[in-house]
Amino acid sequence: MTPSSALRAGIVGLGRLGRRHAENLAQRVPRTELVAACSPIAGELEWAGSHLGVERLYRDYSDLLRDPQVDAVFLVTPTSLHAQQLIEAIHAGKHVFCEKPLSLELADCHRVAAEAAREPRLKVMIGYGRRFDPSYRDAWEKIQAGMIGAPFLVRSQNLDMNDASGFFVRFAPTSGGIFLDCTVHDIDLARWLLGNPKPVRVFATGVVAIHQGLREFGDVDNGVATCEFGDGKMACFYASRTMSHGHETLTEIFGTLGRLTVGHNPRLNRVDIADAHGMRNECTPTFYERFEEAFLREMAHFVNCVLDDQAPALTLHDATEATRIALALRESLQTRCVVELG
Amino acid sequence: MTPSSALRAGIVGLGRLGRRHAENLAQRVPRTELVAACSPIAGELEWAGSHLGVERLYRDYSDLLRDPQVDAVFLVTPTSLHAQQLIEAIHAGKHVFCEKPLSLELADCHRVAAEAAREPRLKVMIGYGRRFDPSYRDAWEKIQAGMIGAPFLVRSQNLDMNDASGFFVRFAPTSGGIFLDCTVHDIDLARWLLGNPKPVRVFATGVVAIHQGLREFGDVDNGVATCEFGDGKMACFYASRTMSHGHETLTEIFGTLGRLTVGHNPRLNRVDIADAHGMRNECTPTFYERFEEAFLREMAHFVNCVLDDQAPALTLHDATEATRIALALRESLQTRCVVELG
Amino acid sequence: MTPSSALRAGIVGLGRLGRRHAENLAQRVPRTELVAACSPIAGELEWAGSHLGVERLYRDYSDLLRDPQVDAVFLVTPTSLHAQQLIEAIHAGKHVFCEKPLSLELADCHRVAAEAAREPRLKVMIGYGRRFDPSYRDAWEKIQAGMIGAPFLVRSQNLDMNDASGFFVRFAPTSGGIFLDCTVHDIDLARWLLGNPKPVRVFATGVVAIHQGLREFGDVDNGVATCEFGDGKMACFYASRTMSHGHETLTEIFGTLGRLTVGHNPRLNRVDIADAHGMRNECTPTFYERFEEAFLREMAHFVNCVLDDQAPALTLHDATEATRIALALRESLQTRCVVELG
Amino acid sequence: MTPSSALRAGIVGLGRLGRRHAENLAQRVPRTELVAACSPIAGELEWAGSHLGVERLYRDYSDLLRDPQVDAVFLVTPTSLHAQQLIEAIHAGKHVFCEKPLSLELADCHRVAAEAAREPRLKVMIGYGRRFDPSYRDAWEKIQAGMIGAPFLVRSQNLDMNDASGFFVRFAPTSGGIFLDCTVHDIDLARWLLGNPKPVRVFATGVVAIHQGLREFGDVDNGVATCEFGDGKMACFYASRTMSHGHETLTEIFGTLGRLTVGHNPRLNRVDIADAHGMRNECTPTFYERFEEAFLREMAHFVNCVLDDQAPALTLHDATEATRIALALRESLQTRCVVELG
Repeated sequence: MTPSSALRAGIVGLGRLGRRHAENLAQRVPRTELVAACSPIAGELEWAGSHLGVERLYRDYSDLLRDPQVDAVFLVTPTSLHAQQLIEAIHAGKHVFCEKPLSLELADCHRVAAEAAREPRLKVMIGYGRRFDPSYRDAWEKIQAGMIGAPFLVRSQNLDMNDASGFFVRFAPTSGGIFLDCTVHDIDLARWLLGNPKPVRVFATGVVAIHQGLREFGDVDNGVATCEFGDGKMACFYASRTMSHGHETLTEIFGTLGRLTVGHNPRLNRVDIADAHGMRNECTPTFYERFEEAFLREMAHFVNCVLDDQAPALTLHDATEATRIALALRESLQTRCVVELG
Repeated sequence: MTPSSALRAGIVGLGRLGRRHAENLAQRVPRTELVAACSPIAGELEWAGSHLGVERLYRDYSDLLRDPQVDAVFLVTPTSLHAQQLIEAIHAGKHVFCEKPLSLELADCHRVAAEAAREPRLKVMIGYGRRFDPSYRDAWEKIQAGMIGAPFLVRSQNLDMNDASGFFVRFAPTSGGIFLDCTVHDIDLARWLLGNPKPVRVFATGVVAIHQGLREFGDVDNGVATCEFGDGKMACFYASRTMSHGHETLTEIFGTLGRLTVGHNPRLNRVDIADAHGMRNECTPTFYERFEEAFLREMAHFVNCVLDDQAPALTLHDATEATRIALALRESLQTRCVVELG
Repeated sequence: MTPSSALRAGIVGLGRLGRRHAENLAQRVPRTELVAACSPIAGELEWAGSHLGVERLYRDYSDLLRDPQVDAVFLVTPTSLHAQQLIEAIHAGKHVFCEKPLSLELADCHRVAAEAAREPRLKVMIGYGRRFDPSYRDAWEKIQAGMIGAPFLVRSQNLDMNDASGFFVRFAPTSGGIFLDCTVHDIDLARWLLGNPKPVRVFATGVVAIHQGLREFGDVDNGVATCEFGDGKMACFYASRTMSHGHETLTEIFGTLGRLTVGHNPRLNRVDIADAHGMRNECTPTFYERFEEAFLREMAHFVNCVLDDQAPALTLHDATEATRIALALRESLQTRCVVELG
Repeated sequence: MTPSSALRAGIVGLGRLGRRHAENLAQRVPRTELVAACSPIAGELEWAGSHLGVERLYRDYSDLLRDPQVDAVFLVTPTSLHAQQLIEAIHAGKHVFCEKPLSLELADCHRVAAEAAREPRLKVMIGYGRRFDPSYRDAWEKIQAGMIGAPFLVRSQNLDMNDASGFFVRFAPTSGGIFLDCTVHDIDLARWLLGNPKPVRVFATGVVAIHQGLREFGDVDNGVATCEFGDGKMACFYASRTMSHGHETLTEIFGTLGRLTVGHNPRLNRVDIADAHGMRNECTPTFYERFEEAFLREMAHFVNCVLDDQAPALTLHDATEATRIALALRESLQTRCVVELG
């Protein structure tokens, strides 16, 4: 492949997840060159230069957007910046990939969608990476092939290992709460696996099991929710910040002819241990070990969409619906009432 | 053991489950003799005589109650008869075991409890057999021992194999609906495993995935529900009549230090098959194969309580609470509103 | 069932396993009364009287054999006594069940078989109980039904938890060594599952991993062996005394259309634990927890054979072949040469 | 990273596995450029040019060796060519990676080792890729960390899906037989996991379960073997060509404190299916799906060794020992005698 056929990528945000996306873009995503990086933190830019060989380093996002060598922008920034940065990228004529969620505000979602609609040439995709995990993809394909008949219920849970340092409490003011931060993934999966049904009503509740500091933000460390859709479909969600065994993303899809389960037993690898603790296996400590391959395939999909002028599999409408349902869950958690979604 | 120290049992109801209880009482429950049987169906009584050697055979329940050779009555009769039959047994001075649920009416539950309270010498127990399953018992003991810290969430599901003959539709007029028939087990398990918290509010919804005939009874073949308890605890339930793989009762208990799961993979036995269908195992077809041992231990527990004058582990208050919560779930399913439980 | 139709059993030997057989015969095996017990140890006889209500208590085996109230004898005695006790029981006109192995000497096996052949009316069975385990039984039935095509290889391993107290070293002088004590079970299973092929040659080897005291007896604590049969079939065995996780009996049967595995993951029950040790389950600590149901069904089979005058499923030829092959394994272990079995 | 720091690779052999290695070298192995390809088949060279952009295409191996733009040669050619091609590459001053096995003749192994020893600057590695699989690597690291105490037994089996087209029969004349073709992997794993013990004696046997055509080559489609090592260690092997469920590579390592198992249940991914066939998962169809990541990491390791002037983890002595033991297994299979390995 000649360099001219590769996508020239600019990464924005080099925090924990940003660095991983940067490494992937630089070394493991086909048809891609990581040519530019942007971060307000000098050390992060130095790392991009020395470890990844990135030469075009920017402290200001607007400078990166002005760089004609950059074809596409990859936003791995705080959620509160997403909408504005997306819109600026579109205005600058850049394709743009943005980590989930699109926004914590529905109005922002609509604003971004409207701007993107004005530039149909540009590819804009929000990173709901789990859709690109090989196992979720396989489940989706089996459903399309009719293996479980008509799917009617998705049960999905997103469990994070307890972080005793209190990260989740510090993150609470900006996370949007457990449903907008975590369950938004499960909401997106449920919509996708059930064939994009329209939500009708939700109910949510939750408890603070460990992290008492969450109370002042109206947040919980364990939340459960039910979403009823319009055509005889429904979903149940559970999100937790307090697991002892690792990160676990588990999704069950029930259909009239069978059930598919993705992610029962979040095993780290194919090793089983038989010792004084019984028969056991180690678990994926974080979502990253679980979804490493998904992150790669998600990027490859976006790059292929840009280079081959295809529509991304995941639309801004999808991202907006995930936020809309998650906002309803949060409202229900706070009121303990059913929230209707017209 | 001399015969005089054995409990003399009379079985009432010899349908599918009744016959199994009768066989257990006759052959497999220690310290017990099955001396009498009652059924309105002549063929069933003949079976009890010829297969189990039962000599005292009654078509009328009142006749059995008058038999001084009967120490304890075992009711495996339609739910609508439970309350009255329980009260008559108490009045006749018999210990009484009754299959779940106690009743579909809360007033009946209270009436039975009041009558039983007047005869503290008599043992009265409702058969929530899953508490006696060795695996559930082990989970409960591990919780008591602090293995998972403070438990805060029970997720429990009760999935039945699809019966294409339409049994569940025919049963719908008297079953009380999916939550009173099935989820009542999970409610009892959740209360027991969480330490008997007080319910605060519930929300339920459901779909008819296969059995359209349920609609006229306001019932569903797949129902999900959430129950919030008063002290930072909660439970999620799912019941289904439409599985393809067998009967599955799965319960997860989440605590601050870990999670216990009972019944993931409802394997029939210890055989795994590797063939053109992949790696697989067969599943328990019905609840009976799954809980065969539990039925035995439940009976042994009740018999021991009677003979040793101990209080049964499961009280009429427990049975009443299970009915009360299940009734609230049904109301919520029908109204799609949150139901508050004072 | 009237008492007269029940088998009147006499237990001989009330050690660890003997007590369990006694309890089963007294309380859990249908159609059976435990009427007599024999042990040279006074305390054991007292236990049988007080706990099980056995009234006919004997210190001498010959006295028990003279008791006309005893229909059948159950031998749970040291292996070195088996052959003589079996023959005496036959001479006394008693049906006799004897724990495995039949003997450590081939000549004894033949002697017992010859005596039993002279009294075809009497039922004589050696307790290779694993054949009666529901999972092994299911595997055998699946093979008969053709599910895996033609079976050609059995791999079977019998792993015991390490006993730091040195039990296996103390037992070494009389155990016959690891192959005669443990692998003899797997040999019997392999023959049964493969359709009783004729053994051709064996090779065995082994190591002392922990229990150095075994060296003086020519024994090992971990032994592996291969047995080639005459018609394109073969078996691989592994026995260990040094496991950390519990007792594990695992058997794989490979056929031309698939594989059956019995006993992968020796889980204690249906509970899974997710905690700081990963995803795990506890294991059966000893063979007894693993085969509790098999012991019951084995007894019930023998009792039914006696009462209904049927031939036991397991013949003295089966027991003799298991000993013959196990002896060849021991010889191969000691010589590290192939041993041919004509 | 600047191009000058990348390894310039030439692939030799573009059959099924060769194409996969070529794609990996071109797109997925860091620090590598695939610059040249060699194949006697015109269509394969065209594919390398059009799909991978390789410009330097050779029909003759000697021409590729003369190309100064090639730093390292990757041999994915028939085993019979390995030794000579390795030696020629060394003479040409090229680093060389060669798929396993090194050779079917021990003399060839020694000849290659001698030539490589004369050019210590050049890196020469044989592709026993399983060592680079993340799960095997994890097991090895756990053993080094003492998790299972002293390892004393490896049981390893290598099961291939039945190929009804008779591939294995056609391949029989050149494969070296099942032990040299398949078990050689398990032998290498056993040596590595047990700490490179010296082999003492072996015994092997086998059957033709399906592919009768193998008989004329003295080969079998299912072979089992035992290898005794010199310091209280041993290994058991099983190789099959006749599975129905997929490819399965399963290795157990038993130590004095526990057991590690790699590859029980060769699941294709994290999807479980519950349907009329029970609870099940699909399996990896071939070794490639199972070891895709291992192939990548193996290449990355070799490339890093070359670029950073480090010794490969896997030596020519390792490859020679694997062949030596496999040859002894084949001899034992043919003679049904123990073969001593001095």
